[in-house]
Parts: sequence; structure tokens; C-alpha cells
Amino acid sequence: MSGDIALALDAMGGDQAPDMVVRGANLARKRFPNARFIFFGNEAQIAPLLKRMPRLAKVSSIVHTDQVISGEDKPSIALRTGRQSSMRLAINAVHDGRAAGVVSAGNTGALMAMAKFVLKTLPGISRPAIASFFPTMRGESVMLDLGANLQCDAENLMQFAIMGEVFARTVLGTVRPSIGLLNVGSEDLKGHEALREASAMLRELDLPGTFHGFVEGDDIAKGTVDVVVTDGFTGNIALKSIEGTARLYSEFLRATFKSSLLAKIGYLLARPALGALRLRTDPRRYNGAIFLGLNGVTVKSHGGTDAIGFSNAIGVAVDMILHGAIEKIREDFAHITSSAAGTGAQVATLG
Amino acid sequence: MSGDIALALDAMGGDQAPDMVVRGANLARKRFPNARFIFFGNEAQIAPLLKRMPRLAKVSSIVHTDQVISGEDKPSIALRTGRQSSMRLAINAVHDGRAAGVVSAGNTGALMAMAKFVLKTLPGISRPAIASFFPTMRGESVMLDLGANLQCDAENLMQFAIMGEVFARTVLGTVRPSIGLLNVGSEDLKGHEALREASAMLRELDLPGTFHGFVEGDDIAKGTVDVVVTDGFTGNIALKSIEGTARLYSEFLRATFKSSLLAKIGYLLARPALGALRLRTDPRRYNGAIFLGLNGVTVKSHGGTDAIGFSNAIGVAVDMILHGAIEKIREDFAHITSSAAGTGAQVATLG
Repeated sequence: MSGDIALALDAMGGDQAPDMVVRGANLARKRFPNARFIFFGNEAQIAPLLKRMPRLAKVSSIVHTDQVISGEDKPSIALRTGRQSSMRLAINAVHDGRAAGVVSAGNTGALMAMAKFVLKTLPGISRPAIASFFPTMRGESVMLDLGANLQCDAENLMQFAIMGEVFARTVLGTVRPSIGLLNVGSEDLKGHEALREASAMLRELDLPGTFHGFVEGDDIAKGTVDVVVTDGFTGNIALKSIEGTARLYSEFLRATFKSSLLAKIGYLLARPALGALRLRTDPRRYNGAIFLGLNGVTVKSHGGTDAIGFSNAIGVAVDMILHGAIEKIREDFAHITSSAAGTGAQVATLG
Repeated sequence: MSGDIALALDAMGGDQAPDMVVRGANLARKRFPNARFIFFGNEAQIAPLLKRMPRLAKVSSIVHTDQVISGEDKPSIALRTGRQSSMRLAINAVHDGRAAGVVSAGNTGALMAMAKFVLKTLPGISRPAIASFFPTMRGESVMLDLGANLQCDAENLMQFAIMGEVFARTVLGTVRPSIGLLNVGSEDLKGHEALREASAMLRELDLPGTFHGFVEGDDIAKGTVDVVVTDGFTGNIALKSIEGTARLYSEFLRATFKSSLLAKIGYLLARPALGALRLRTDPRRYNGAIFLGLNGVTVKSHGGTDAIGFSNAIGVAVDMILHGAIEKIREDFAHITSSAAGTGAQVATLG
């Protein structure tokens, strides 16, 4: 049927797979009536689950394989020996055009290595980055890289900035997204050389969005900028520090409402309002990290998520597909970098 | 009077100085009846404030100076031209033995540069680190470095680990503190080389505490370890990301309790319990970053804090002094590193 969106799902990735993957797809099906699903994995485990969800079964197919990449497999080994794995076959489906995007809750490193190998990076992009969006004081922001590249040079950071800007504009619908480089201070002289160089390069670019300059760790939650750019080491630690703190506060709050009878009654009265807060800050809502810079939609779900979380990761892939995000990144990246080359090649000399 | 603790206070550092500094000292005076205060700064501004607090005035003296280091001054310039500044004179007082510790809410970089220059580092310690403690799921943990050294080698990280362990054991009273190296994964092969080398070095050391291995960003709030060790770039961003998230949650919660009449009533009932939570997570409670590795107690207060926050920074200095933390770090550092050298010099070869 024309207008359909086919999604390749790694049915075996994640702590509660394949159950969580199939039920996640069923939730996504309700939100996206045009979606079709191809489950890659153990048919003997997947088929009985699908049987219990006849509406999902109608828009789904199974590609059987016994091989599964585990969370402990090293990316290089997974790449070499995992050619028949559920993860690899799902990625292949995107490459072959049988699916418009792939979603996996499996091993992040293996998924990145395989996706890079099979789908390749977009022209001009040296390294793909992992991006995610999250709630802030002012709405939602994107951050990248979250762990694909532990060490980055100025050119990598500049490329992440361009990709993040296109993502915010195209997929999140942010008008003229602002971009910030994560640093230990906002003054021009702060941080290491790669950051100062990247800042100089971004000032020269003719971006559809705006380059704000350096931002600090607390600017992430403030929402000072729409796109936070950083290397994969720092981004991973910032993201997880934030997640850990969010969990700590939820835990503290839960304990507080149990600490006295009055607090318990107070909780009951405020419950609807607190429910809305919980919904707004639910980590499952922000589940689904995007591998930006690849020639194909690849979304990584948290391994520990449930069906609701996984359905949101599918939602991120659908959003990427519906907004033609890959094509947009390809076009805008070529356009922005070529315009920079035309203005005196500062980018090239600085890089 | 014997048993007195003399504190050198930079009266001119911080957004609300000197008012906040003097009122902070007055709060600290109530908690520490043995404390005496030397205020360094503009006497014409400080004296009238002291006049209104006669009990504080009785245990205080003023050393007048007109010169003030601003928040924008570069550390190297401040070091060269700020010899008569309130900050520098306060540090000098520790060096001369007129004070047992210094507290400033001024320019962090300038304070570090001056303290390092005047007080020097302890024997064997290459670089001092900025440390702070914060609430976790399991109590309180220490993290360092928070910004003094943007790039660190394995030896720096190992030294931070030793200093942090002594601080947790001596000042926070943690029994057998556990130490973790902040990384993007807990497996041995994750992260950059300096981290893997530091990990190997720490495994060889005969520490009074225990070396846990690598920890991730979410382990900070979990309290997985008592001491989180990282380079100053990563530590600064992790700390500020956490602070920003804590503020975001407080803000979300405030808005939630105002969102409906029932929520407002619920808030009123739960207020005492929520007040306890606010107290527990109040950033002012954790105000006071310690410069570890220097030959003298140096505490940096947040510039934007109020009198309550500043009094807590004074409290951190007093705790350091009462527990003989500097002497403890000097002794334990010498002991731990010499024992490592004796076990086959793995530390030296790996460094």
C-alpha cells in the first residue's frame, strides 16, 4: 500500500525482548496507522506474541534468525561475526529499501558499528553522532554526541552542530534553532583547543539557525540553546548525570510523600497535577537516540525500557522518516559547508 | 585564646559581598563558638556591617584594602597585579599562620592561581583539584576535579583519587570510602587511555579505602561510590548538569503545585515534609568547594550564594581544619604512594 512506513525492528535487543519489542510495536501501531513492522529474530518466540495481537500481526512480518548480539559483545566482533544477527538483518533491510528505518534496543556500540558499515555516512560527514532530545525549562532541546565518538576534533564538532541544527529544525520543528558548544565557561577563551576552533568555524558558517557560542552544564536543563554540541565522552556523562539526578529527585519526592500522614493526604490531592509532571519528565517519553549522519534512519532504544518506551523510540524513527530528515541533513550539510568554502575557506584552514 | 580557629575571609568576593560575607560569618559564629574571623576588604563597607552584629564584631578584625579581584579578571593577570587584593591578602594570612583557612566567593581561577602560588602544593602532588560533596541516594559523595585541570593524565587522576579518599574518610567520616573513575561505561576497556591507566594504577595501590573501578554519570546521584574521580572538564560539566537538572525539577514541582486548587491544598498539607526535602536538596547546603592538594585550607563559595550558603562554606573550612585534613592528606599521600613504589614500582612504570 502506498504511503506505508515500513520499520525494521530488532526483536531480540533489550532486557525484556522480544516481548517488549512486540508490545511496543503494538502501541506504535495505534499512533501510526500507516506503519508496518518487520520483526527480526526468533520466530518461535515472536509468532506467539503476534498471535495475541491480531491487528499488529496484520501489518507485520517476521524474518527468522537464531543469532543475537548480546550486550557484552564488542562492536568489532559483532561486526565480524554477527552477519546473521537480528540486529544486522534489520539494518540490512534499511539498506535494501525493504524498510525506511531500523529500531533496536540492543548493544549500542554494535548497532553503531553495523549501521555505519552497512548504511555508510552521508557525503562529507566524517563520523556519525548519537543524538537525543530531552525536557528543559523552555521546552525541548537536542544534544549530541552522546557516546559514539569519545574524542572529537573541531571539524567533528562543527559537523555535529550542523546535523543537530537540521534535526531540531526538521524533526522537532524549532524555528531558527540556536546552537551551543558545551564548555566549562561561556567566555571565548575557555576550554580546550578543539572547542575554540569549532567555535571559530561555526561563527563563519552561514547556518539557517544561530550559533550562540559556549554553554555550560546547567544550560542544558535551562534550555539556553536548542542544540547542545559536545564530544561523545562529555555528552554521555552529562546525559547520564542528568538522568541519575532526575531519578534521585523522583525518589526523594516519593519518600517525602510517604513521610507523614499529612504528606500522604497532600499527595492524594495533588495527584492529578503530579501525574502530569510525571508524564512530562517520564524518561520513556524521551527514549530513542538517533544516529545522525548515517545514510538511513537508525534509532537506538534504551535496553532497559518497556513497551511504552520502545513505542516512543519507534515514534522517533517515524518522525525522522516523515520529515525526510536524512535527505534534509544531506542537502543542508552540502549547502552549508559549500557556502563556507565560498566565503574564504576559513573552515578549511581552521580545520 | 587557645583552641580558637581563625578564618581569613575575602569580604569582597561574591555577588552580594561584603554584606553576604559578614552575615554568613555571623551565622557561622553561632555554629562554631571557637571561630574568629579576619575580614579582608574595604573597611568603610565592612565596619558598619560589623557594628550591627556586636557579637560577631567581638571575634572579628578587619584588614583594609581597596583592591578587589573581579569575576572577569584572568587568573594570570590577577596573580600578577592583585597583590594587594582582598583575596590575595586573605590567602597570605593562611600562609603566615595568622589564619587556619581561607574562604572566598570570588573568581575561582584567580583564587586557585593565587592559592597555588602562595600556599604551594603538598609534597608529591602535581596539581591541586577542586572537590565538592553532594547528596546521593545513599548519603553524600565527593567528586573531584570540578574544573581546576581541564586535561589530566593518569597520574593526576590517581592523585585526585587518593586525596578524595582521604577527604571522605577524614572530613565526611566515611568508613573505607569507595572510589570510582568517571567513564562512559563500567567495562575495563571503556574510555580513553588516561582512564584505563589510572584504573590500573589504582588497582595496585594499597588504599585505606577500596577502588571500585569505572562508574558512569548516573552513578553520581546513585551514590555507587563515595569518591567520584574525573578530569576538571568532565567534572565541571557533570556538576553543572546535575545542578541544572536539580533546579529544573524544583521549578517543575513549583509549577505543579500551582497548577490547580487541589494541588495547592495538597501542597499546604505536604508542606512540612516538602520543607524537609527542600532542606535536604538545598544547593546552599552543599556550598563550599575545597581546593585539595594545597598546603593550606582553601574553600571557594559559589559567587551567587547568600549568607546561609556562605556560612556553609565557612563550615567546610572549619571541618577541614578540625579534622586536620591537610596534614592527613600529606601523611596518607606519602604513605600510599611510597607503599606502591615498594610493591614493584608499577605506579612509576605505568605513569
